[in-house]
Amino acid sequence: IAQLQQQQQQDELQQEEDRIVHLFQETSPSVVFIKDLEIDKRLKTSPEEVMLSDDNTTKIEGTGSGFIWDKFGHIVYLVDAKGNGFYREGKIVGYDPAYDLAVLKVDVEGYELKPVVLGTSRDLHVGQSCFAIGNPYGYENTLTTGVVSGLGREIPSPNGSAIRGAIQTDAAINAGNSGGPLIDSYGHVIGVNTATFTRKGTGVSSGVNFAIPIDTVVRTVPYLIVYGTPYSNRT
Amino acid sequence: IAQLQQQQQQDELQQEEDRIVHLFQETSPSVVFIKDLEIDKRLKTSPEEVMLSDDNTTKIEGTGSGFIWDKFGHIVYLVDAKGNGFYREGKIVGYDPAYDLAVLKVDVEGYELKPVVLGTSRDLHVGQSCFAIGNPYGYENTLTTGVVSGLGREIPSPNGSAIRGAIQTDAAINAGNSGGPLIDSYGHVIGVNTATFTRKGTGVSSGVNFAIPIDTVVRTVPYLIVYGTPYSNRT
Amino acid sequence: IAQLQQQQQQDELQQEEDRIVHLFQETSPSVVFIKDLEIDKRLKTSPEEVMLSDDNTTKIEGTGSGFIWDKFGHIVYLVDAKGNGFYREGKIVGYDPAYDLAVLKVDVEGYELKPVVLGTSRDLHVGQSCFAIGNPYGYENTLTTGVVSGLGREIPSPNGSAIRGAIQTDAAINAGNSGGPLIDSYGHVIGVNTATFTRKGTGVSSGVNFAIPIDTVVRTVPYLIVYGTPYSNRT
Ligand SMILES: [Ca+2]
Ligand SMILES: [Ca+2]
Ligand SMILES: [Ca+2]
Ligand SMILES: [Ca+2]
Ligand SMILES: [Ca+2]
Repeated sequence: IAQLQQQQQQDELQQEEDRIVHLFQETSPSVVFIKDLEIDKRLKTSPEEVMLSDDNTTKIEGTGSGFIWDKFGHIVYLVDAKGNGFYREGKIVGYDPAYDLAVLKVDVEGYELKPVVLGTSRDLHVGQSCFAIGNPYGYENTLTTGVVSGLGREIPSPNGSAIRGAIQTDAAINAGNSGGPLIDSYGHVIGVNTATFTRKGTGVSSGVNFAIPIDTVVRTVPYLIVYGTPYSNRT
Repeated sequence: IAQLQQQQQQDELQQEEDRIVHLFQETSPSVVFIKDLEIDKRLKTSPEEVMLSDDNTTKIEGTGSGFIWDKFGHIVYLVDAKGNGFYREGKIVGYDPAYDLAVLKVDVEGYELKPVVLGTSRDLHVGQSCFAIGNPYGYENTLTTGVVSGLGREIPSPNGSAIRGAIQTDAAINAGNSGGPLIDSYGHVIGVNTATFTRKGTGVSSGVNFAIPIDTVVRTVPYLIVYGTPYSNRT
Repeated sequence: IAQLQQQQQQDELQQEEDRIVHLFQETSPSVVFIKDLEIDKRLKTSPEEVMLSDDNTTKIEGTGSGFIWDKFGHIVYLVDAKGNGFYREGKIVGYDPAYDLAVLKVDVEGYELKPVVLGTSRDLHVGQSCFAIGNPYGYENTLTTGVVSGLGREIPSPNGSAIRGAIQTDAAINAGNSGGPLIDSYGHVIGVNTATFTRKGTGVSSGVNFAIPIDTVVRTVPYLIVYGTPYSNRT
């Protein structure tokens, strides 16, 4: 009977693992690889006007992650404190310097895009499980796991101001999964992983990682898509 | 039926997360923020005599964590290898240089203090879950999670000797939650988190963190409260 | 009834922890401590000919881990990019420079060795639990936990080529548990932990750790035992 009980426990543990495996498989098709971005410092406010200009551009070092916002080809990602970006097969439609957050529009012809499932960052609790997905090498996704370590954190913003309400987690966030989604155990996106703080930190900050709360992202992205700039810059 | 099964698994996973959320909520009121400590290098042995002296003091860089020992206002914390500390609204009553552990006495008038629930570090097993709580930014607590990675470790002590019987964990311990409690999955304190080793370490020691076993702390704190010094220094 | 439910949840969580504790206790006797290795750069191909030569040897800095391959005393470990090794109470029988993997033969007279249970790295899924065991201080084992973060990674090899199919994990891997086994939640070995990448990395790569897939190890070890060299060098 002890063996039967052990088997039952094994089954439960297996089911739990299967759920996390499934969670990853469901969400990872919505996570995209951002690579070789050309930076155009003279971003215009209208999405249609945004074009790559050969002069006044620089390469983004390294790579990052983004995620599919909608079926129309909008992709949200972090520019990574280095200016605005232009995607090879897409164009940048908006940029919010307060979060270094950009929206890219890619051609969806022939592609069936799978947008992420948006959650809310309002009802989070310290201690709940969370999962960071990113795309550090392009061809495959990466999963790291942990809990929500803290809420309402204030982290430095790329434009010198502060990002408020950040989610702290002990799930590993690094250059590879920065810009990718932080999801809860239902697969809902609760934040956008940011490695800005981690990179500036010394070894001491190991296990102290942050994500921009999704509610903040949800507020700004529609403005970025329509106007190219956040609400505060719209006029 | 697969969907029903999936729902049951989801419920179980949810219950498990709820338990960790609850664990945090129960323990975090007992964790305090230690900030702007004035160091008095000439600590006297009698608790009542301990006073801040304006000369011969230095500021502690950064901040740390401590936890409520009893309803009488005794707070246990780590001085962090920088000498003895004085709390703004309390006074230091004892200091054990072997562990860099100090006891602070704060005025409890008007406050209902919630002491931690003490466990034992004697019956631990490698592989059991553990949770580190700290107070890196003062206004809110932080939770990191992991397992007991090893037992009976010897780590360098601030006074040049060694701390024996240390608990090794892969739960992240950093400057922020140093001095805070390491708890088991019943919410019982099994150790005091120490970032001393982590800070000295290079990137290599990532995921290798330590806590002073609570049994050691339980032995020394009563002496610190009554005599101001550990047993070995009492005569 | 809420209390009863809470008790049931507690029991389940306890059972889960017990399983991980048990997992560690079952596997750790198969993990060995590698220390003070003498390096012989003139390794011969025949196992019987391998001897310590006093000249042309150097000490390996630090220590590492290995695991028991079979009851005949064969131990698999990582030489750690520093050449070939000679164990104090054993002799090196083979070395694969592509993985820095060596096989040691120790005298089993009077010892009852407990080999690891080999799994396969073919059926792994991102998100499944994994456990790294190592022997950083010799007298006791260390356990770190996480999930499979990625599959099919390519990591730099000690001999300048690349190790393909590496397993990425957020379980902490460091100098201490390098060479030890990465096991799944059934206790089966799915990889050999390698800290090579981690050590070269900056703080950024925290939470990004790798293991050599066990299928690769299973292919090369028999050749190392019989011929002293990997298949590709056999002729
Ligand atoms: Ca599905
Ligand atoms: Ca579980
Ligand atoms: Ca309660
Ligand atoms: Ca057993
Ligand atoms: Ca972890």
